[in-house]
Amino acid sequence: MNTLALAINGAGDNWAPAPWQARFSERLPGWRVAFADEAALDPATVRYAAVWKPKPGQLEKFARLAAIFNLGAGVDALMGDTTLPDVPLVRVVDPDLTHRMTEYVVLHTLLHHRRQRTLDAAQAERRWAAKDQWAASAVRVGIMGLGELGRDAAEVLGRIGFRVAGWSRKPKRVPGFETYSGIGGLTTFLARTDILVVLLPLTSDTRGILNDALFSRLGRGGVLGAPVLINAGRGGLQVEADILAALDDGRLGAATLDVFETEPLPVASALWSHPRVTITPHNAADSDPDAIAAYVARQILAHEQGGALSNVVDRKRGY
Amino acid sequence: MNTLALAINGAGDNWAPAPWQARFSERLPGWRVAFADEAALDPATVRYAAVWKPKPGQLEKFARLAAIFNLGAGVDALMGDTTLPDVPLVRVVDPDLTHRMTEYVVLHTLLHHRRQRTLDAAQAERRWAAKDQWAASAVRVGIMGLGELGRDAAEVLGRIGFRVAGWSRKPKRVPGFETYSGIGGLTTFLARTDILVVLLPLTSDTRGILNDALFSRLGRGGVLGAPVLINAGRGGLQVEADILAALDDGRLGAATLDVFETEPLPVASALWSHPRVTITPHNAADSDPDAIAAYVARQILAHEQGGALSNVVDRKRGY
Repeated sequence: MNTLALAINGAGDNWAPAPWQARFSERLPGWRVAFADEAALDPATVRYAAVWKPKPGQLEKFARLAAIFNLGAGVDALMGDTTLPDVPLVRVVDPDLTHRMTEYVVLHTLLHHRRQRTLDAAQAERRWAAKDQWAASAVRVGIMGLGELGRDAAEVLGRIGFRVAGWSRKPKRVPGFETYSGIGGLTTFLARTDILVVLLPLTSDTRGILNDALFSRLGRGGVLGAPVLINAGRGGLQVEADILAALDDGRLGAATLDVFETEPLPVASALWSHPRVTITPHNAADSDPDAIAAYVARQILAHEQGGALSNVVDRKRGY
Repeated sequence: MNTLALAINGAGDNWAPAPWQARFSERLPGWRVAFADEAALDPATVRYAAVWKPKPGQLEKFARLAAIFNLGAGVDALMGDTTLPDVPLVRVVDPDLTHRMTEYVVLHTLLHHRRQRTLDAAQAERRWAAKDQWAASAVRVGIMGLGELGRDAAEVLGRIGFRVAGWSRKPKRVPGFETYSGIGGLTTFLARTDILVVLLPLTSDTRGILNDALFSRLGRGGVLGAPVLINAGRGGLQVEADILAALDDGRLGAATLDVFETEPLPVASALWSHPRVTITPHNAADSDPDAIAAYVARQILAHEQGGALSNVVDRKRGY
């Protein structure tokens, strides 16, 4: 009997191993779904592994492994693991996850555009605020990262009326949107951006990219007065000390952060209490375990029939 | 020389009469643009009037009047004025205004759906909140009012993933959405609605419709736990004492209000400080004076060439 081995070591309800075993068993009739460390498991039966933060070496004994499925979109945590068997590594690209990210990006872009924090402050003082609201068409949103997530968010933000452009490492065309790429395109992209939405993968190229130098290249924020940062990608993309400095010297007007250098964000972080920072607990696009299990099971069954795997990570590129 | 007479009596920057005169003069070459009360004005030259809160009787002397243009979307303030000449009354249907309303509706629907107020409270306590976010597809939005505004909001909310249905007085089909109508359809519509978005015109039929009886017919709010009210229509639609009572006895979980029985909302109102009420200062869809002037000028020039007027108010229906 073929086996799917689970190596799931995350924290939080979504990463309890037993429900994952149940989800996969239901969707893979005729398969054994076992934990990678079970003593009774014959390693030679293991065809696939489904992992979340696997321990280094945890998959080494599976000589017949055909592919590894990471149970989330970001594979950065796996990239440093040199013990990982050299078989295709598949990441999650799930419409449910994409839609959740778009919800988050649209909410927080609108929240800044419509100055809801200023209106909240007026309400707290029982004050009828002055009306001076510009239209979305006056605001330039720039999206860093033009994968599934970036493209879906661009589409909805564009429909709402924002002037949306995108940036990616390599040139990408997104019908209906201005796109920039590479180091060369970054300067122009940043200068024309009022609200910067970051949905980049974390790689050696992007680590710490949201830093002092980048904030200095942003424009003046147009009608917003100062540019706004929304990071829903990875905490490793940002230098938090630089964000605080840019907020305090006016290069950034406000920031919404869903991800952090250390998660959960330490209680002592100055980000918590900064009046122009919105903190969310890395829940921009929570994975739906049922949707992810269905996606992985579909790929396993198709691959067993000779089909190609989708969304295989380019290990050199890092995503 | 033909004249456009202006009767503009609103408060606030948007209603300063002189800029309106300049906007119309620029867009109506060969026309005189005058104030209705100017002594030098020959009433017999006045072909059209553009009004905002005209004083009763202010237009009576214009015997050759061909049409009246209201400089905003809502004509309810005019409906009680029996001195208004019996000529076509045109309301503003402007894509800019429609898009701004959609921004507002999408922002506040997402704000409730993503429980941003709860996350704000966690941040104030430097607390990493638990993740238990449902997808938009778990939330049923119900839109009362299926004119241009309601239909545009429905389209974007549907694209984001919400389960959207609409209600209107008379049956209306909106491709892709469930619709309900009339008193008969209201019960089913309310029972299936988690977030109620109100974009109705104010008429004798709709005055006070957001009352105790209506709140009692809402469902339990599904994943939200209790239903949410968003009123961006007219203040006269709502009974504020009933909103407060429904919030306090759990029939409503939260409310976002852009309009009020009395505007500006009096300082003494209990709505200001209710922890589950968001107040915005009737700025959901601020008119862009330039866009409105262009819209009215286009209609005047087309009408002079024998074209039909668009968006003429049905005075019996009230909108």
